[in-house]
Amino acid sequence: MNAHAEFSGLEVGYDIPALPGMDEADIQTPCLILDLDALERNIRKMGDYARAHGMRHRAHGKMHKSVDVLKLQERLGGAVGVCCQKVSEAEVFVRGGIRDVLVSNQVRDPAKIDRLARLPLRGSRIIVCVDDIANVAELSAGAQRHGTTLECFVEIDCGAGRCGVRTTEAVVQIAQAIDAAPGLKFTGIQGYQGAMQHLDSFDDRKAKLDAAIAQVREAVEALTAIGLTPELVSGGGTGSYYFESNSGVFNELQCGSYAFMDADYGRILNRDGKRIDQGEWENALFILTSVMSHAKPHLAVVDAGLKAQSVDSGLPVIQGRTDVKYIKCSDEHGVVEDPDGVLAINDKLRLIPGHCDPTCNVHDWYVGVRGGKVEVVWPVSARGKAY
Amino acid sequence: MNAHAEFSGLEVGYDIPALPGMDEADIQTPCLILDLDALERNIRKMGDYARAHGMRHRAHGKMHKSVDVLKLQERLGGAVGVCCQKVSEAEVFVRGGIRDVLVSNQVRDPAKIDRLARLPLRGSRIIVCVDDIANVAELSAGAQRHGTTLECFVEIDCGAGRCGVRTTEAVVQIAQAIDAAPGLKFTGIQGYQGAMQHLDSFDDRKAKLDAAIAQVREAVEALTAIGLTPELVSGGGTGSYYFESNSGVFNELQCGSYAFMDADYGRILNRDGKRIDQGEWENALFILTSVMSHAKPHLAVVDAGLKAQSVDSGLPVIQGRTDVKYIKCSDEHGVVEDPDGVLAINDKLRLIPGHCDPTCNVHDWYVGVRGGKVEVVWPVSARGKAY
Repeated sequence: MNAHAEFSGLEVGYDIPALPGMDEADIQTPCLILDLDALERNIRKMGDYARAHGMRHRAHGKMHKSVDVLKLQERLGGAVGVCCQKVSEAEVFVRGGIRDVLVSNQVRDPAKIDRLARLPLRGSRIIVCVDDIANVAELSAGAQRHGTTLECFVEIDCGAGRCGVRTTEAVVQIAQAIDAAPGLKFTGIQGYQGAMQHLDSFDDRKAKLDAAIAQVREAVEALTAIGLTPELVSGGGTGSYYFESNSGVFNELQCGSYAFMDADYGRILNRDGKRIDQGEWENALFILTSVMSHAKPHLAVVDAGLKAQSVDSGLPVIQGRTDVKYIKCSDEHGVVEDPDGVLAINDKLRLIPGHCDPTCNVHDWYVGVRGGKVEVVWPVSARGKAY
Repeated sequence: MNAHAEFSGLEVGYDIPALPGMDEADIQTPCLILDLDALERNIRKMGDYARAHGMRHRAHGKMHKSVDVLKLQERLGGAVGVCCQKVSEAEVFVRGGIRDVLVSNQVRDPAKIDRLARLPLRGSRIIVCVDDIANVAELSAGAQRHGTTLECFVEIDCGAGRCGVRTTEAVVQIAQAIDAAPGLKFTGIQGYQGAMQHLDSFDDRKAKLDAAIAQVREAVEALTAIGLTPELVSGGGTGSYYFESNSGVFNELQCGSYAFMDADYGRILNRDGKRIDQGEWENALFILTSVMSHAKPHLAVVDAGLKAQSVDSGLPVIQGRTDVKYIKCSDEHGVVEDPDGVLAINDKLRLIPGHCDPTCNVHDWYVGVRGGKVEVVWPVSARGKAY
């Protein structure tokens, strides 16, 4: 595919880091690049896994914020739709043509509820999470105002310590209220154990997930007993999806990071004690950066600093290099240890970001490369959509 | 000023967090807000200081990335122009009408040099930093190709350990090469000690700056001795400007953070041992955030996480509150300790960001407020301009 025409008029450098058809060597840095072969392999692999385990896979769009990546996940990986965290993200995915959208978060602001309740008018199924019985009347009023239906998950806090209720009693109460509320439909359970996804040891993650699954199972049984069998029980991430898939309780996964990977996720170990970025998932997302100063023989300075990435989960790792190391990040600069002075001005490096989600959120474009050429340039469609 | 007309057609929430004329209570969160009274006081104060000390003030635009804020710094604070770190930022400021633009960084990529060399055609003075004699011929070729003049600063590494040369001999060599190169003009010295700006103790900062000033003075004297007296000796930040101003060597300041302030800068102490956010500079920038879940009585969850800020320099501080505390930041959520359960759903809090520069870079808009009303909505004009 050559999408040159779409981007005619854009100025490389000022507006956009690259155009389709360009050589990879001509991409303006710093920018995000996607290894399209690796990305497609990751997407197909998760799709195959979900299919083999009878699970729906609702890909997490908060990670990449891209309608184009999501459509690839639907087309190659059989994803059933998207989950995202903000109403403004949901608006982007709905306008982009995604038909099944979960806001895996609470929506409480009256203006946001109004925007959410309008979205089904565009033809998409909209699901939202609830963790407070007072929210039920607010959502119901919004849906009735627009003559729409909002589907609702009750969110269980199964260990992350953020949103969600902790007792089965509370789950049942809220589910009953949703079921009774005009304009709302009780559709299921949100149970995402976010606090365990990045634990390095497989056994530590398993212990947390065993507890989470037991908690969700109890709630599902209680709901079933009163005739409110959840249609969907949704959760799971890149660090846990095999637990949910084999639980007999969950029927929908919400993985995001598997598609791109990052340095922090890469460090966690699978059942066999191997890092998950060595065989399970490939790094498909990189920050392409250039050496722009080398005034000290053993330190190179590259053009990707805090404005090109988030370092909340650690510094980036330079792909495929053991001779040089990214050791310091300031606003616009990265300092790279270069003990043997092997780097030259304008040399390019691929950085594996510490944490993909907030790193993608500072960029406007994904530059998709294959065989040394720029094949596609996709907007980070929901970048900055936080409200 | 009411700029409603400019923004007609924008949808609050989807496109933009607020419109001029709205009540502050109706702003969609999370978003950046500017206390315009505090901002104007900071800008006037720095302007008065620079004027009283006979210093030019070239405001650092990399911090706010906003043509509108820069114009306010010119109009109210007598700023002589802007400095920024990237060619794409310089392009935004030049297109926005700023007439004196320093790229306080090296430009080495051939395509970037070409873009830089075209900028003077739009009528602005363009200065760029050099720390490698090989760069002189590259810049000269670019300027000659477009028939323009690029002014050059030689950058001295006076302690930050990133870009810049360390010896007076290297400074003189590069300055002579610039002076001899067609299309280039040797204009002065860049000497910014970035590594000391955030040291808490005034005496620690003074010791680092004394050394930096001595190093710059030696270079200036050597250049003067060979007839290459620098027109501009430029440097200084919010944590050091009083040292440069009283050095007798520097004649241009490059302060940025003073205008907005942040939690990390706020902690540094002035000569009297007082935090600089208590009397010296006011917090003018906040992340406005809302409580969106409170399922646990002692923990509130707010809607500003890593996608609304950078936490590289620590977590945000909640303005004006000692009863609640922001204790944890995940992708889309902030966890706020609320021991007495005083927060209610939809309550709004003003967060002082840990580090203003990379926080501004994730937002598209500044919402300027005064007296409870939205007065202006300014784009973060150079947001994402990293290349």
